[in-house]
Amino acid sequence: MPSIDTFPNTYPNRDYEITHVNPEFTSVCPVTGLPDFATITLYYIPDELCIELKSLKYYYLEFRNKGIYFESSVNEILDDLVEACKPRYMKITGEFNTRGGIHSIVETEYYQPGWISAE
Amino acid sequence: MPSIDTFPNTYPNRDYEITHVNPEFTSVCPVTGLPDFATITLYYIPDELCIELKSLKYYYLEFRNKGIYFESSVNEILDDLVEACKPRYMKITGEFNTRGGIHSIVETEYYQPGWISAE
Amino acid sequence: MPSIDTFPNTYPNRDYEITHVNPEFTSVCPVTGLPDFATITLYYIPDELCIELKSLKYYYLEFRNKGIYFESSVNEILDDLVEACKPRYMKITGEFNTRGGIHSIVETEYYQPGWISAE
Amino acid sequence: MPSIDTFPNTYPNRDYEITHVNPEFTSVCPVTGLPDFATITLYYIPDELCIELKSLKYYYLEFRNKGIYFESSVNEILDDLVEACKPRYMKITGEFNTRGGIHSIVETEYYQPGWISAE
Amino acid sequence: MPSIDTFPNTYPNRDYEITHVNPEFTSVCPVTGLPDFATITLYYIPDELCIELKSLKYYYLEFRNKGIYFESSVNEILDDLVEACKPRYMKITGEFNTRGGIHSIVETEYYQPGWISAE
Amino acid sequence: MPSIDTFPNTYPNRDYEITHVNPEFTSVCPVTGLPDFATITLYYIPDELCIELKSLKYYYLEFRNKGIYFESSVNEILDDLVEACKPRYMKITGEFNTRGGIHSIVETEYYQPGWISAE
Amino acid sequence: MPSIDTFPNTYPNRDYEITHVNPEFTSVCPVTGLPDFATITLYYIPDELCIELKSLKYYYLEFRNKGIYFESSVNEILDDLVEACKPRYMKITGEFNTRGGIHSIVETEYYQPGWISAE
Amino acid sequence: MPSIDTFPNTYPNRDYEITHVNPEFTSVCPVTGLPDFATITLYYIPDELCIELKSLKYYYLEFRNKGIYFESSVNEILDDLVEACKPRYMKITGEFNTRGGIHSIVETEYYQPGWISAE
Amino acid sequence: MPSIDTFPNTYPNRDYEITHVNPEFTSVCPVTGLPDFATITLYYIPDELCIELKSLKYYYLEFRNKGIYFESSVNEILDDLVEACKPRYMKITGEFNTRGGIHSIVETEYYQPGWISAE
Amino acid sequence: MPSIDTFPNTYPNRDYEITHVNPEFTSVCPVTGLPDFATITLYYIPDELCIELKSLKYYYLEFRNKGIYFESSVNEILDDLVEACKPRYMKITGEFNTRGGIHSIVETEYYQPGWISAE
Repeated sequence: MPSIDTFPNTYPNRDYEITHVNPEFTSVCPVTGLPDFATITLYYIPDELCIELKSLKYYYLEFRNKGIYFESSVNEILDDLVEACKPRYMKITGEFNTRGGIHSIVETEYYQPGWISAE
Repeated sequence: MPSIDTFPNTYPNRDYEITHVNPEFTSVCPVTGLPDFATITLYYIPDELCIELKSLKYYYLEFRNKGIYFESSVNEILDDLVEACKPRYMKITGEFNTRGGIHSIVETEYYQPGWISAE
Repeated sequence: MPSIDTFPNTYPNRDYEITHVNPEFTSVCPVTGLPDFATITLYYIPDELCIELKSLKYYYLEFRNKGIYFESSVNEILDDLVEACKPRYMKITGEFNTRGGIHSIVETEYYQPGWISAE
Repeated sequence: MPSIDTFPNTYPNRDYEITHVNPEFTSVCPVTGLPDFATITLYYIPDELCIELKSLKYYYLEFRNKGIYFESSVNEILDDLVEACKPRYMKITGEFNTRGGIHSIVETEYYQPGWISAE
Repeated sequence: MPSIDTFPNTYPNRDYEITHVNPEFTSVCPVTGLPDFATITLYYIPDELCIELKSLKYYYLEFRNKGIYFESSVNEILDDLVEACKPRYMKITGEFNTRGGIHSIVETEYYQPGWISAE
Repeated sequence: MPSIDTFPNTYPNRDYEITHVNPEFTSVCPVTGLPDFATITLYYIPDELCIELKSLKYYYLEFRNKGIYFESSVNEILDDLVEACKPRYMKITGEFNTRGGIHSIVETEYYQPGWISAE
Repeated sequence: MPSIDTFPNTYPNRDYEITHVNPEFTSVCPVTGLPDFATITLYYIPDELCIELKSLKYYYLEFRNKGIYFESSVNEILDDLVEACKPRYMKITGEFNTRGGIHSIVETEYYQPGWISAE
Repeated sequence: MPSIDTFPNTYPNRDYEITHVNPEFTSVCPVTGLPDFATITLYYIPDELCIELKSLKYYYLEFRNKGIYFESSVNEILDDLVEACKPRYMKITGEFNTRGGIHSIVETEYYQPGWISAE
Repeated sequence: MPSIDTFPNTYPNRDYEITHVNPEFTSVCPVTGLPDFATITLYYIPDELCIELKSLKYYYLEFRNKGIYFESSVNEILDDLVEACKPRYMKITGEFNTRGGIHSIVETEYYQPGWISAE
Repeated sequence: MPSIDTFPNTYPNRDYEITHVNPEFTSVCPVTGLPDFATITLYYIPDELCIELKSLKYYYLEFRNKGIYFESSVNEILDDLVEACKPRYMKITGEFNTRGGIHSIVETEYYQPGWISAE
């Protein structure tokens, strides 16, 4: 797993929401070897740690020449980022460009065991 | 039923969501013989199997010269895709182009017996 | 009441949703005698019968030279279409063009006695 | 209070919704004496009475040269229109144009005592 | 804390909502020293006090040459404005412009102890 | 020809442009007897006379129950309005709603003999 | 060449413009055998004949199962329609859906020998 | 004529363009006494003088309770502003809100005698 | 230069226009080593040869790991594609994503010696 | 004048166009001391030199705490950038946010003596 830097959450007493939208995600289709393009949205409620934005950018760059399916990349990003910052809640959404006339969205989420949303 | 290929879901421990949007669906009106056009959106939560994108594309092509009503095509797609991948949840939405000054939307869904949404 | 044709719902085992949007509805203001224009949206969950699209179009045409208030036309359409197809649920929305600098929306709905939404 | 005309609701057996959107509301800032501009949206569920559209238009015109704050005008409109038509539910939304680089929205609502929404 | 003026809420008997949208917020990145830009949305339900719009504008100007992270500025604004007007509920949303190809949203909220939303 | 009122142009020394956009034009298809809908845009440079807006509205209403083709209605409107106000220049554009999956635009114009555009 | 019906232009004394937009054009890729989708826009200045709309629709349907390249279909449509109505001017534009991540537009035009645009 | 302040153009050696868009213009219909609303766009190429923005705002406010036709207000504004700043070129555009289902645009312009556009 | 396939233009007697829009172009910044993203639009009037779409796609892929400035990539693409198909006219436009808060567009064109546009 | 870096134009044989759009420009109103916000668009045809993007960014930052009128900032930017890169043609457009209900656009341009546009 690539290194993802974090910094301490200075407002851990509150459930608040952080969203980072990356419209420049690209990976490679494992079947055709051709590039895929997506917008990846990271949405999370931090616990003790926040994700550092620059290292997040470099983390996404690791996928540029990696052969991976839509469903796998979105779930793998969730696993890596949950491990890095141990959030109360996290959701990853990938919106992939049209391939063969069809465009696709994959969305996956994580709940910290024992955490209950205030909503 | 046309053949729809599947591949194993490698994250079956999670309820996550996959959406495939096909804005190039066309079938034939059984009354007039004229073509109908629609955007078909497939949204599902996989269980053990995911739908393979290329075979989905070819499945939709089967409707190109088929005479079928709006209400029937959307429900028939639901039945076929549920049978193919046995999902936890599936929803099919068809948005049909204007005919006689009226445009139409049909939406139908399936719940796996015993499955309970986390939301 | 004008005649509205129906056809049997071949998927009565499911609650599914049908929407027909008519942006070309016109009636006459009973006060000024001037035409009113609206988009009428019919949304329903069929029980045993579906509404036939062409007869729906002709039904709407009956309002072209009829003097009627916004609030009345939307409720009257609901009554007529409920009587025609006896749905599980129906909602009629009328979005009327600007008159005197103000534009208006009227929305009314019907629940079949005893029917409970799955949502 | 200016006079607001009403007419009998001919469908009092249903909870249905009426919306009147006025994008041409203007009043005067009590501090600077300069005009303010807003879109005022009236949304209500009538009980025995509906608001007559032309008198509503004239009611809004009363604010054209009146000095009043954003928060007060929206609440005062609610009080006046509730008194005029005694609805089951009413909501007034005012969306005010940019002043000092900031634009503002005020929203206030009324529930008839004892009335319970079907939703 | 910069001074934020308030005025008495003349409708304290109701829970109503006030929103002030500032698309001209700018602060300075504490790492690079370069300016950041955001739209800050303040949404609150007043209790006894409302926030005066002009002093809010001057409050935001204090951030123009201040080095502060996205997550901190949004939470700090919440703390300052809660202290100033002691609302029943408040939510601050910051939508920050693209940096390094990624744009970010931070949202945080406050509930007055004992207050229960009518919704 | 229906009567179209005019009033004297008080700025005949200048070539200036007047546009009236009517999104509520409706006529009847001479083949099917079904209504057609269009946005009719009148653009002209007045000479001695301007077209009075209310009589223009009533002029358009004359088409409501008239059977006429797209190409004819737009050219007929040009002829009628040129005759009524004898402009330096006039252009009529009709944008017709989708029929049989195709939507249509017809545009026709008139130049006063001897008049030369300053552009 | 499929038959395209025409009717006499009743305003041949004027150069005026007719546009028919068909967003439901589909043909077949001669290489892959997969369907292509396009919006075809026909724009022309009639001489003695206008194109009849219903026969135009049926003309376009001839391409539904025909293998043809983008560049050829647009030029072939121009040739066929020029032959059918012998216009003063005609332009055909085809906007084709994304294939392999690239979408394409082809535009071609015809001038009647000796005709000079008034513009 | 209300007073319109000016300040010296410090770049008179160049033809450059200044646009001020006022979406909050309101006047009164001389027939009905009801308010009209418009966006007024002032576009000019200054000669020796530029129009001061605050006095322009106050100039437009003079129309708030003035009875005047669309065609007259736009031409009158042109005359007043040309007299105030003696520009090389000026154009006034008024886009008026819907009245009787029709919305209107009036556009008028002034060329300084002897001035030739570089374009 | 990578190989770009061509096929014979079957309508060389006409000047007609072909546009291929690629929103998935990516290259590498020669200074930072970070990826750049752009939409590249190729617009040309063919002479004897047309550019084959699939080889164009593969040509663009050559830039994926190439360090090159905005201004150079757009001009280099022009040179390569002119050499490949020797068109009557060609224009390349690159619209690059935001970097450092600024987004950029570069546009360059080629005219075949002796060719004169019909427009 | 702040330093603006340049680099040699490697395609000086062509007239081609470079656009840099900066939506994050801010300066200070010399009258009120309050910040102004604008999108500044630089469009130029280079001669021997291109403007380096990072130094352009730093150049714009110089205006952050500078008191200057709309008309002056746009013309001053033109003078500075023309001096820095001596282009064949340059145009600067500033679109300024709403102040007092009015938003403003200023556009100014430079032609190199003796240079003639190919268009």
